[in-house]
Amino acid sequence: MSGLGEFERIARFFSPLVEGQSDALGLTDDAALVTPPPGKRMAVTADALVAGVHFLADDPADRVARKALRVNISDLAAMGAEPYGYTITLALPRGMVDAEAWIERFARGQAEDHAEYGIRLLGGDSVSTPGPLSISVTAFGWVPADRALTRAGAQPGDDIYVSGTIGDSFLGLAVLQGADFDLSEAERTTLADRYLLPQPRPQLGQLLLDVASAGLDVSDGLLQDLGHICEVSGGGAEVELPLVPFSDLGQRLVRAGAVRAEDLVSGGDDYELLFTAPESARDVVSCLAGQAGLPLTRIGKMRSGSRVDLLDAAGKSMALDRRGYTHA
Amino acid sequence: MSGLGEFERIARFFSPLVEGQSDALGLTDDAALVTPPPGKRMAVTADALVAGVHFLADDPADRVARKALRVNISDLAAMGAEPYGYTITLALPRGMVDAEAWIERFARGQAEDHAEYGIRLLGGDSVSTPGPLSISVTAFGWVPADRALTRAGAQPGDDIYVSGTIGDSFLGLAVLQGADFDLSEAERTTLADRYLLPQPRPQLGQLLLDVASAGLDVSDGLLQDLGHICEVSGGGAEVELPLVPFSDLGQRLVRAGAVRAEDLVSGGDDYELLFTAPESARDVVSCLAGQAGLPLTRIGKMRSGSRVDLLDAAGKSMALDRRGYTHA
Repeated sequence: MSGLGEFERIARFFSPLVEGQSDALGLTDDAALVTPPPGKRMAVTADALVAGVHFLADDPADRVARKALRVNISDLAAMGAEPYGYTITLALPRGMVDAEAWIERFARGQAEDHAEYGIRLLGGDSVSTPGPLSISVTAFGWVPADRALTRAGAQPGDDIYVSGTIGDSFLGLAVLQGADFDLSEAERTTLADRYLLPQPRPQLGQLLLDVASAGLDVSDGLLQDLGHICEVSGGGAEVELPLVPFSDLGQRLVRAGAVRAEDLVSGGDDYELLFTAPESARDVVSCLAGQAGLPLTRIGKMRSGSRVDLLDAAGKSMALDRRGYTHA
Repeated sequence: MSGLGEFERIARFFSPLVEGQSDALGLTDDAALVTPPPGKRMAVTADALVAGVHFLADDPADRVARKALRVNISDLAAMGAEPYGYTITLALPRGMVDAEAWIERFARGQAEDHAEYGIRLLGGDSVSTPGPLSISVTAFGWVPADRALTRAGAQPGDDIYVSGTIGDSFLGLAVLQGADFDLSEAERTTLADRYLLPQPRPQLGQLLLDVASAGLDVSDGLLQDLGHICEVSGGGAEVELPLVPFSDLGQRLVRAGAVRAEDLVSGGDDYELLFTAPESARDVVSCLAGQAGLPLTRIGKMRSGSRVDLLDAAGKSMALDRRGYTHA
């Protein structure tokens, strides 16, 4: 790395992010000191991202920062937690010529998502590496002492819901990798943004605490993630493909034969919430959709057994070549 | 990476580490759920380590795991915190042929330090990288709601103390890099171990909560770290070189002219605690040394101004070519 040493970099780019915040101790101490709110449990999650694997090496640094934060915020949302803070470690390539400019822009992305999600920096580390730029974030949030949204608790007969739309991130990555799809520039940007900048659902997660029997965020692919709920809850599931919510763009591309609907379902990186709730809760769920300002679509049912089936329009189980995206 | 996917690796190597521990949810959920003890604040710290930079690429994996945990436990100790748990993210080189064997041994190192420091795994992530193996740990501990050991609070006139001995890790790294020093194999191993396996001082940190005015752990080098106390507390300091505690081996190498005493003082990676306390607390400090089973040596005094001086046997300030080790 060029120019500034670690202490100067912290002082210049990261200390302004914690101004007015007593728990980070100005990033000048060995650790941050956080006072847990009474009657809460802390949700803790960690995710690592590597340039060229989890983001593209020339993605703008502010987008990279926000993606790193948001995949973690999505995990907090998946527990029904209110986001609180995070630590971050950065491994910056040796000899990175524009390190300061990159970090400055990275910190700007952090600041934007601090404002957007009410999350704060608590500490971290920056080191140099002979390898690609890598980021590791550990995020914290609070859940009520007696409740959380976990993968356990889904019962046979429970409805399966998903928030928002599925498959846009898959299409966005395809666009970024050169797929044309016969779309306008604006449409291509819309899809690319879905991949580059996940929209985690922490408010929805908190609303679901009282109604969902189980839940998680869709990162590996809807069917594979549903499989995680089945494994932990014990049980099987079926999803009706015609019910899975696609965006207008997604629907258009399926109709045009540019992609198959089942590819959108197993694409991953959606960061929507997938959850189960008893049939008796349908009215409550539809009310929460209004409160969250987000479609919540019923896409199938939990059942006994352990299989996860995707049913076509005729109700027939479809053979799939891939159930989901396996993170490298 | 070869063989097992991420889910299988977690199940085989990491899930056994959290057996009987409800907060990690078997590592099968989106986040861990930790119940904070009443009346405590949480100390949070993060450190990243890169193969070839912070450890040697062929260091045994269990040692690497323990080093990654211990540099973080040392930061908790430096706040006076009782270690509780941690998250860890691993970036493993693509095509690493012995990944499973490496991870198995890594997990064995984690288990050893879980037992040694009463710390537990809470969650994490493992990804593949085209770069070197990298590790990021975020560690948590608890401090009383009304006290913590921070870098702020040192007053002019306060005594400066350091625990244990200084400089062995510097010598250990030199040995690992090929320095001979005319030592026996056993002596060389002793020194190398000090570099490879830091001995953090969490018990001492907790004991110091009631007596130290400021403190931190020595990672960048005694003088540079003392500089951090001076910056945050406001003030200067002087250290008397003849008072700085060296190990028998360190003293022998200084006498033999193999290294200079001032190199040992500025070497870094000691992970001893450096702290200040009022002169009136000398008896208490000496009593705590007994309780901690660890020498606590008075090496100088805080004073006004902002300079940090190293004084020789004649009380003269020494000109130094390097004040400390700057972490890459």
